[in-house]
Amino acid sequence: MTAADHLAWGVVRPTGAHASIAARLGDRVLPLRPPAEAGLLGHDLDLRHAIEEPTLNALIELGRPAWRALAERVRHLIDVGHPLMPLAFCEELLPVRIADYVDFYASLEHVENFGRLWRPGQPAVHENWRHMPVGYHGRASTVVVGGTPVRRPRGQVAPGELAATRALDLECEVGFVCGPSARGPVAVDDAERHIFGVVLVNDWSARDIQRFEYVPLGPFLGKSFATSMSAWITPLDALPRATPRAQDFAPAEYLRAREPWTLDVALEIEVGGEVLSRPRSSWLYWTPAQMLAHMTVNGATLTAGDLFASGTVSGSEPGTEGSLGEIGRGERWLADGEEVVLRGRCGDVELGEVRGQVLTAAP
Amino acid sequence: MTAADHLAWGVVRPTGAHASIAARLGDRVLPLRPPAEAGLLGHDLDLRHAIEEPTLNALIELGRPAWRALAERVRHLIDVGHPLMPLAFCEELLPVRIADYVDFYASLEHVENFGRLWRPGQPAVHENWRHMPVGYHGRASTVVVGGTPVRRPRGQVAPGELAATRALDLECEVGFVCGPSARGPVAVDDAERHIFGVVLVNDWSARDIQRFEYVPLGPFLGKSFATSMSAWITPLDALPRATPRAQDFAPAEYLRAREPWTLDVALEIEVGGEVLSRPRSSWLYWTPAQMLAHMTVNGATLTAGDLFASGTVSGSEPGTEGSLGEIGRGERWLADGEEVVLRGRCGDVELGEVRGQVLTAAP
Repeated sequence: MTAADHLAWGVVRPTGAHASIAARLGDRVLPLRPPAEAGLLGHDLDLRHAIEEPTLNALIELGRPAWRALAERVRHLIDVGHPLMPLAFCEELLPVRIADYVDFYASLEHVENFGRLWRPGQPAVHENWRHMPVGYHGRASTVVVGGTPVRRPRGQVAPGELAATRALDLECEVGFVCGPSARGPVAVDDAERHIFGVVLVNDWSARDIQRFEYVPLGPFLGKSFATSMSAWITPLDALPRATPRAQDFAPAEYLRAREPWTLDVALEIEVGGEVLSRPRSSWLYWTPAQMLAHMTVNGATLTAGDLFASGTVSGSEPGTEGSLGEIGRGERWLADGEEVVLRGRCGDVELGEVRGQVLTAAP
Repeated sequence: MTAADHLAWGVVRPTGAHASIAARLGDRVLPLRPPAEAGLLGHDLDLRHAIEEPTLNALIELGRPAWRALAERVRHLIDVGHPLMPLAFCEELLPVRIADYVDFYASLEHVENFGRLWRPGQPAVHENWRHMPVGYHGRASTVVVGGTPVRRPRGQVAPGELAATRALDLECEVGFVCGPSARGPVAVDDAERHIFGVVLVNDWSARDIQRFEYVPLGPFLGKSFATSMSAWITPLDALPRATPRAQDFAPAEYLRAREPWTLDVALEIEVGGEVLSRPRSSWLYWTPAQMLAHMTVNGATLTAGDLFASGTVSGSEPGTEGSLGEIGRGERWLADGEEVVLRGRCGDVELGEVRGQVLTAAP
């Protein structure tokens, strides 16, 4: 088995069968309920029960040693020839019931690009930005699995004017599904132990709604209609680490890692069949570990199934922007019927894709 | 049975027994699992299963007819003499696993009071504010039941300076626990059907952390360490309606109710044994139905167990402010060991209290 043959976790409904949590290997899938019921995945009762659940939350709740033990058993089963099923015979379901969803804003280039569009003449980067990974809570219950069509939202696009958004955008992001934590902060050097795995995220945004509503409490209805995540969660263990970019000055100590790491996910944004941009997640100013340390420094507990995402991953050059707003300089938005596909690869490992077609607004 | 004898819903653990969802009547409680198992609450299987759950979510999921049917059966059981248990013999647990938590900012006086403190010389009320109930998503997984002590959070209280907050505040709010909705907006005239009940909320806030972090994505760590809600949820049906205050101009049509209503909850803020303020929720500029209609106008689905809160309820007169920051004009904050108690009464109906003591920050 090579690095490219990594396992990823998800939930599928095979044609004519019950939904099951599943392991994916390339384009083949192993739904885990049947082998678990046959005793082929060991006799740990907690694990057996977790495998019977309709989402990965109970498995994630068991913690990292259980994730690793299960991965070992699944690999063994595959090695001894247990049959896999073609992915094409399965419907992919939302793998995790998202507990809380936090979206960061960790790309300096995205902040600068947007600042120029939205606040021309004013400093794009606020005073706090280089001191902490700025973020906010998004709506957890409208996180949907890749492939789900997304209906164009309505909202106040201008004072008092309710209409379907005329500025529907995508945001290309990398997301992290978390395991539980005891109450108390997650140290920046401990972050890896609390990350179950990595996904791609499209944080759909209605820019006209967002722009009118966001002062002073941040984005709300401009984002809360839908957020798409990829169906398969790649364990952090499977991914090669990269060196983060240098920060402009050392942040507070709780954000200083002894051995800083990040992921270099090569991302691709396709709209209407055309690849428009190729940003890389190693360009992010803040690292995943810094985001997680910051998010919990106030004592906020992590829950199995929390999702945090990087925010739009953008570069400064044309062809590297992470949103259509940046690509089109505020002149191009998503049309009804258009399909967005985000893809990602980290070293040898495909992170899969997150796909979504825009549906016409409700009447 | 008088209006004062309304039922409220919660979850309790009676001394020496299992946790159970429960109905409360005054200072007595009926844990519902034992009578449900004895067949005394009807034979509807969905309802039986919902009563076996550790939170009210499954009951709420069943929808308003089921809530009303269960209330009728519980009242009947009490009328025919089924014994109740003193509330003092029960531990109160978090009644609902909060799906998403949205906090609004619906008090004009709170906005004006805070604007004067935080942005002196600038207009306190932003352009969007009179057009829509401005709000944001808070952290759902750190909503705790009243009585839970709250540890003073740490965070960046100034650029690069991690410290325990020196500006810990309370916010006195009214909260609404929601039932499910089909995908699609909840019409302002339909809001009542989607509200399971009413609670009191203390949206604890670390003002120094919040102030440094909140531009441009809104409050995050200054709020996410803890939000307290009262243990008992009073059905909306049990509460008398009041006439909302006049709005400065008619908002967009989706926010215009045919028969506008609000609740006039007489609130009381006690800190360290002293009542400091008495705001009323009928002073809010935006009504609960407007908040719910706005929150879903973009198509965002409601989930059983969603909580939305009004934001701080403030008046303009001394003795009517809804936060300690306003009461003390930015000079007084919560001390370690101090206990905050919020109380509320709506007409004849006691909404109970939400209590929380401040614990010293973690070392």
